[in-house]
Amino acid sequence: MLIQAGQLLNLNVVVLENDSNSPAKQVTNNNSEHITGSFNDPVSIKALADKVDLLTVEIEHVNVEVLEEIEKTTNVRVSPSPATIRTIQDKYIQKEHLMKHAIPVAKSIPLLEQSPEALKQTVDNELAGVYPVMLKARRQAYDGKGNYLVKSPEDAVQAVETLSKTAGSGGLYVEKLAPFVAEIAVMVVRSESGKVVAYPAVETVHEDSVCSVVFAPLQTKDSGIQQRAQDVARNAISTFTGAGVFGVEMFLLGDGQILLNEIAPRPHNSGHYTIEACATSQYANHLRAILDLPLGATDLVVPYAGMINLLGRNDGSEEGVLKLARKALEIPGAHVHLYGKAGCRKGRKMGHITVVGESSAAVHARIDELSALLPPSDSRVKENPLAHISALLPSPFKKANNKSSSTNPLVSVIMGSDSDLKVMNAAAEILKKFEIPYELTIVSAHRTPDRMVEFAKSAPSRGVRCIIAGAGGAAHLPGMVAAMTPLPVIGVPVKGSSLDGVDSLHSIVQMPRGIPVATVAINGGLNAGLLAVRVISAGMPRLLNSLDEYKRGLEEEVYAKIDKIEDVAWENYKGL
Amino acid sequence: MLIQAGQLLNLNVVVLENDSNSPAKQVTNNNSEHITGSFNDPVSIKALADKVDLLTVEIEHVNVEVLEEIEKTTNVRVSPSPATIRTIQDKYIQKEHLMKHAIPVAKSIPLLEQSPEALKQTVDNELAGVYPVMLKARRQAYDGKGNYLVKSPEDAVQAVETLSKTAGSGGLYVEKLAPFVAEIAVMVVRSESGKVVAYPAVETVHEDSVCSVVFAPLQTKDSGIQQRAQDVARNAISTFTGAGVFGVEMFLLGDGQILLNEIAPRPHNSGHYTIEACATSQYANHLRAILDLPLGATDLVVPYAGMINLLGRNDGSEEGVLKLARKALEIPGAHVHLYGKAGCRKGRKMGHITVVGESSAAVHARIDELSALLPPSDSRVKENPLAHISALLPSPFKKANNKSSSTNPLVSVIMGSDSDLKVMNAAAEILKKFEIPYELTIVSAHRTPDRMVEFAKSAPSRGVRCIIAGAGGAAHLPGMVAAMTPLPVIGVPVKGSSLDGVDSLHSIVQMPRGIPVATVAINGGLNAGLLAVRVISAGMPRLLNSLDEYKRGLEEEVYAKIDKIEDVAWENYKGL
Repeated sequence: MLIQAGQLLNLNVVVLENDSNSPAKQVTNNNSEHITGSFNDPVSIKALADKVDLLTVEIEHVNVEVLEEIEKTTNVRVSPSPATIRTIQDKYIQKEHLMKHAIPVAKSIPLLEQSPEALKQTVDNELAGVYPVMLKARRQAYDGKGNYLVKSPEDAVQAVETLSKTAGSGGLYVEKLAPFVAEIAVMVVRSESGKVVAYPAVETVHEDSVCSVVFAPLQTKDSGIQQRAQDVARNAISTFTGAGVFGVEMFLLGDGQILLNEIAPRPHNSGHYTIEACATSQYANHLRAILDLPLGATDLVVPYAGMINLLGRNDGSEEGVLKLARKALEIPGAHVHLYGKAGCRKGRKMGHITVVGESSAAVHARIDELSALLPPSDSRVKENPLAHISALLPSPFKKANNKSSSTNPLVSVIMGSDSDLKVMNAAAEILKKFEIPYELTIVSAHRTPDRMVEFAKSAPSRGVRCIIAGAGGAAHLPGMVAAMTPLPVIGVPVKGSSLDGVDSLHSIVQMPRGIPVATVAINGGLNAGLLAVRVISAGMPRLLNSLDEYKRGLEEEVYAKIDKIEDVAWENYKGL
Repeated sequence: MLIQAGQLLNLNVVVLENDSNSPAKQVTNNNSEHITGSFNDPVSIKALADKVDLLTVEIEHVNVEVLEEIEKTTNVRVSPSPATIRTIQDKYIQKEHLMKHAIPVAKSIPLLEQSPEALKQTVDNELAGVYPVMLKARRQAYDGKGNYLVKSPEDAVQAVETLSKTAGSGGLYVEKLAPFVAEIAVMVVRSESGKVVAYPAVETVHEDSVCSVVFAPLQTKDSGIQQRAQDVARNAISTFTGAGVFGVEMFLLGDGQILLNEIAPRPHNSGHYTIEACATSQYANHLRAILDLPLGATDLVVPYAGMINLLGRNDGSEEGVLKLARKALEIPGAHVHLYGKAGCRKGRKMGHITVVGESSAAVHARIDELSALLPPSDSRVKENPLAHISALLPSPFKKANNKSSSTNPLVSVIMGSDSDLKVMNAAAEILKKFEIPYELTIVSAHRTPDRMVEFAKSAPSRGVRCIIAGAGGAAHLPGMVAAMTPLPVIGVPVKGSSLDGVDSLHSIVQMPRGIPVATVAINGGLNAGLLAVRVISAGMPRLLNSLDEYKRGLEEEVYAKIDKIEDVAWENYKGL
């Protein structure tokens, strides 16, 4: 993917990899130039350096001493900086570096020796003997390899043995378990001169500790999390030197706190979605950063995106992967990326699919369709990796299995009282008819003011684009909600027992300077629904066609009545 | 670009091209397999066929007899069908084929011999002696090569000589000049089974007869043109056999009529924008079509896109091309595509830049920035190729150099009378403040009803996403406009000399079932502007941040007043 981005700039790329037909080598005609060798082999790395002006890495498990030597003794630039790779490739040193710079991380303590006794002693001395803890290998760890959940002291022997087997003798450290409700990630780009820009925060879903699905942008009830996650990631990357993109993985805790989990000094799986969904892909921006070209914009250019990894399954055949890829060809907005890897092993990343769409509901539905084709794995039996698991995440203001609401609503229909439902149900009917995901609930300005505040403030970060609020009498709900959200609020004056609804109308429409409410007719629930469809057509232009069709329906209704009056004569007309 | 799309599906591609280091060959490692030879050489084409299961072409000027032979005598599938290529590669036979199938084209007559006399005689006999006419070569014509504008009989000798030089002796034909106001194009995909789907119609701008800029989607005052252009293109491609993508170039005449100009049986320059702007790129869809996989969705996934070609300039150096590419790196949403071609000649396509953006105004501004770096060419001195030249195109309801309106407005501010301006100017102020392109004018329901109808019906296809309409008294304007457009209409009741504005309020808000108007407070011009910003935030989420900031400003205003009252004591308070 990096090479394809480079080809767009006429870059000539030479690849060092163990496999002479690796994916990277398949997409250039430099076959005579490419080098076959290990990322740890000094001779291979130096041979590569001999052929290039600029050397970059897409894996942090490399021989950093050789990179440092190249940086010192040749004119070849190395990006990201070897010093940065050195800090990051030892995960405990990485943590120590972050703690030194006051970046929030889970408490981490190195084991003085790689033994079960050292583990238990460390937990007792430093973590008050509280289990479970995470035991982690300091080096050669990725995709969950090198992590072991130690539930009790009895696990210690097995834990140390397992990690020693997969990650060697590079040392271990203990990490206090972060009680996270979601895993999130931010791609960050750092220029040669130290300019640091962040991509949107995304939600990452892991399965057997391997990233399986990514949703962009992260949607939460807490409207500040998006910004805070980007800040943590940017601050962290600002503490390093050298240019390139960095994947920053973080934990989101139940109280909204964010802890940095780990950093990858390279393009990252959680940033694959940027290829189709952002103004500049992580690959294009990595190249811009290391070539000292202007960094590209990191904004999303589509409303929502999801990415699902094509992981090799137990049987080792590629059939499961290809089944998903074939299904994706039928899904609008799905982009298949197969990597051309020769062997399909369990857990190996054979490709990915990115789905872009006009709403989170549409993207989630399409990712679910793909995900349904996956065979159950151990962790999938226990929990659906796609289910949102936290009160911070954008499940609407509702119980599980709520029959009135979508999980990813674009429109919220709220009303001050259940007595307004007879008017507001027409709005919901319209949204159903136009297939727009919505939620419907009661929010009373006067009786549930706290709920109203939480509702109004969280709506944008939950992905809601328009709010319909109905109220009668003093009718404060639409205006108060409008005062606490930047979203368009449609107000429906509900006729009460006195004043014919004029009280509600004036309460809703006569808003002061600065806070508009889009007011419809008294008892105009149906029109409020239609207005919401018109409003969100600003981001979904295909709705204009559906609205035109609806309008033709109204026209035909009237023509039918015209015919009927002519047919039966007006004196006999009793309605259609 | 086709190969890069194929690599995502793990396809193995072998290339036949004259140049052993052609762009296509640079992006695969099949160097030992690729064939160096001419598209007309039977031996080379057969050698290619020997290596593949499926053969496709990206140029129609190929030896079609050999393709037909391969199709008949081997198991190699050839897509698009050689019969289709044969029809299309002779532009007069192509025209004849289209006329036979009742596809609208400009009147075309073949010359019986390639001589100035035959030309003059044909114009006299078949076109009533009316000049100018277009003289065109039947074969080997592309990018304007093979076209000659014959202004009078005196040009005949030069015309025939020029075309004979560039296009050989393959025959000539005369075409009645289409008095077009814009050139438009539609990419069409045809599956093996004959399913035909169209991409959006786009505007193409030509310079020296070479496509230089493309805007997607086509925006016009006539809301039916988008659909009609797609219909013409789809109908045309339905008359051919075989699978693949086709570029359909058309003329848009002043009366809204569409004439098909010519068809390319392959991915096309006017479809490059699809790579970043559509759910499936033209390249991915070409592969899906010829591999008999499900065709991909053709919708735009971004609001608007522009494409500018990087054409070699007079001096033959690549510096001009690279200057644009470097500039593009500073432009948000710009994607640089350099093709890796070895020699830069005048008019040679060395690459292209696609710019995606949230609005046509933003994309036009960015394309203009790039276009400003181009040296003046002969045709550019005479006319700005980026200027819209037609009443059909979306210049707003205004004169040239209108000081109140953007050329590509997202919001229209209209009012029934100039006396409403004192209220409505606040809406325009807000739109200016939030940097939203808008237009402002008078549209009176009662005094200019035709203008109102044209305004309302053309607004969506001109790219407008929200309308603000102010009116007083009987105040029919907002509701009548809402009845004739699917866009959200914000109504501003303007207070008249009697009834305190309640007359206007009730006229605007009490709309019947089916036609909503988003009504704001009496004289609420400012709130109408803010509501419009909220509404279009549904397609431009970054506006939510600006709205939050605005809201904080209001809060601070009040806090300042609180301070002042405390500072001076309420008895002395005279306002801030």
